[in-house]
Parts: sequence; C-alpha cells; structure tokens
Amino acid sequence: MRLTFHLLRVEAHEVERLAYALLELRRSTRLCSQCLAFTSEDPCRLCQDPSRDGGVICVVERPADVVAVERSGGFRGRYHVLHGALSPLDGIGPEQLRIRELIERLQGGAVNEVILACNPTAEGEATALYLAKLIKPLGVRVSRIAHGLPMGADVEYADGVTLSKAIEGRREL
Amino acid sequence: MRLTFHLLRVEAHEVERLAYALLELRRSTRLCSQCLAFTSEDPCRLCQDPSRDGGVICVVERPADVVAVERSGGFRGRYHVLHGALSPLDGIGPEQLRIRELIERLQGGAVNEVILACNPTAEGEATALYLAKLIKPLGVRVSRIAHGLPMGADVEYADGVTLSKAIEGRREL
Repeated sequence: MRLTFHLLRVEAHEVERLAYALLELRRSTRLCSQCLAFTSEDPCRLCQDPSRDGGVICVVERPADVVAVERSGGFRGRYHVLHGALSPLDGIGPEQLRIRELIERLQGGAVNEVILACNPTAEGEATALYLAKLIKPLGVRVSRIAHGLPMGADVEYADGVTLSKAIEGRREL
Repeated sequence: MRLTFHLLRVEAHEVERLAYALLELRRSTRLCSQCLAFTSEDPCRLCQDPSRDGGVICVVERPADVVAVERSGGFRGRYHVLHGALSPLDGIGPEQLRIRELIERLQGGAVNEVILACNPTAEGEATALYLAKLIKPLGVRVSRIAHGLPMGADVEYADGVTLSKAIEGRREL
C-alpha cells in the first residue's frame, strides 16, 4: 500500500523507469552456470575472480545467502547455491535441489573443502547431514559453520539448544 | 504500575505474603562459598551434587547465567560466577570480579578444564582473554563457548561478525 501511494504521488516518468527496470531485471538476470547464484554475466563476478580460492566451496540455501556471507568478509572461496533445503513434507527431496551440480563440481578434483552454510534449522541440518554423507566418499573435507551464541548476545537469554551447542562446540584458547 | 494495581486489587493477606517473601528472600539467600551463585544452603545444590563432574568449571558472568546453562542441559560440571565482566570505562577491573576465588579453586589441582561462558560482547570477550592468560600457566585447559549462528536463525539475516565467526569456527563433519 505504501509503495502504491508513493507511485501515485511521484511523476509519471519515475513509475515508467521503475517498470522498465523490473522488466530488465528479469530479462538480464540468470543463474551463474557454475555457482547457480543470480548474475547478469555468466560466469558470475565471484566465479570469475582469480583472487578467490577455488579449493573451497561454501554451500548455501539461497542466492541472498551469498550476499550475506560476502558482507561478513569471512570467506574468500567460491559458492554453490542449492536453491532450497531438504523438506520431505513440502515435497522437496534431493532431486529438487541443485545437488547434482555440486557433486559434478567436486568430481573435477580441484576442491578440497566444502563448507556447509545451510541455515541452522531442521531442514538446513538435514540437508547438511545428507550432503556430508554424499561428499565425504569423494575425499573432500566437509565442515559445518559453527552453531553458537551470536555476537552481542547474552548467555542468560540464549535458548537452551543454542547454549548447549555453544558448550559442545567450545574451542580451546 | 501493573504490579501496583494488581496489589491494590487482591486481598490484603496476599500482599503481606509477598512482602514477607521478599524479606525472607534477602534473609535466606547468600552466595555459595564455592561457586558464588545465589543459594539458600551453603554449598549450593549444584556444588554438593556428587554426580556432577568436579573436573570442569563453567565460568559465567552472573548467577542468572547458571540457570540458563542448567536449563540448556548441555553441561554437567561445576560453575563459577564472576559477578560481572571487565569494563575499564565503568571502573570494573579484575579486582572487582571474583577472579581471585576462581584461581584459588584451580590451585586445588582437581580441575582440568575451564569453559569460559562470559557473554559474546566486548566486555565478555575481554574477560575471557584475560582469564585465559591467567589460567593457562596453571596447566588447566581453557576453552571458550562457540560463537556462531543460533539455532533457527537464517544465514541471510545473520550479522556479519557472527557469520564470519561461524565460518571461522566451522567443524569438520
């Protein structure tokens, strides 16, 4: 409603610009043939960047997760977007995800570690376990991003499962 | 205000019971001589429990944190409450915290690991680093609870520092 009222208030050519931008968005955006993130050029900017480590692939559920991990600045390898997570109740099995493409990339032999950055939800955990089972026989190291207390959090108000995982996953100092 | 209106509405003897309970609370509650958590008997129930592992001490900032860690069910050792975190700007240095008592407990030789569960805040991190430096020369293993994504969270909406720590602290599957 706020958007509609805004569009009714601004000048007509601004609405046209927005409309054309929306059309152009769908026309110019496709999935990167390597990492399956959204891109306007193929392969995408991240897959093309020679300064990134091609030996590590960070697996995420959705294209927006790539943006989040990039923003964090904590990763300098390549990505692979699954386009979802396993969820049998919603009819999402391995065939509905871009798992086959991931395995094909790993069979090239250039990758030595896969970091599973699926969400810390029931579906994400199931997906991570499924992928770990699939990938380990290929001789590729598989790791899972840490579960624990987010920065700025408070032990007193942390939920029990997270706190329990934080203790379980403690690191020696 | 809600409490006040409630007290004005209920019968007088209920207010009296609450008042006496408050007086009794302060009279009967003291700090446990071992872990420094609140208790009505000394040593506290947790320090007395022979089924708990006396070889591991979980260090927390406040008594309420003990309750949170207990609720998580992820820890079966003993506790030590610092009663705060280092915060030079607020005039809280090592002398204001119950650090001396912790070191004395460790010098007994029965403890082989200290888990630092201070909050993942600037003050908590500083306290953890300070304690690690102090404790390691005693030959006691020091670990820090994991920083990472809380359960049920979403990679897309995680803050950058947390996501970066989650990748850094990834665990092999």
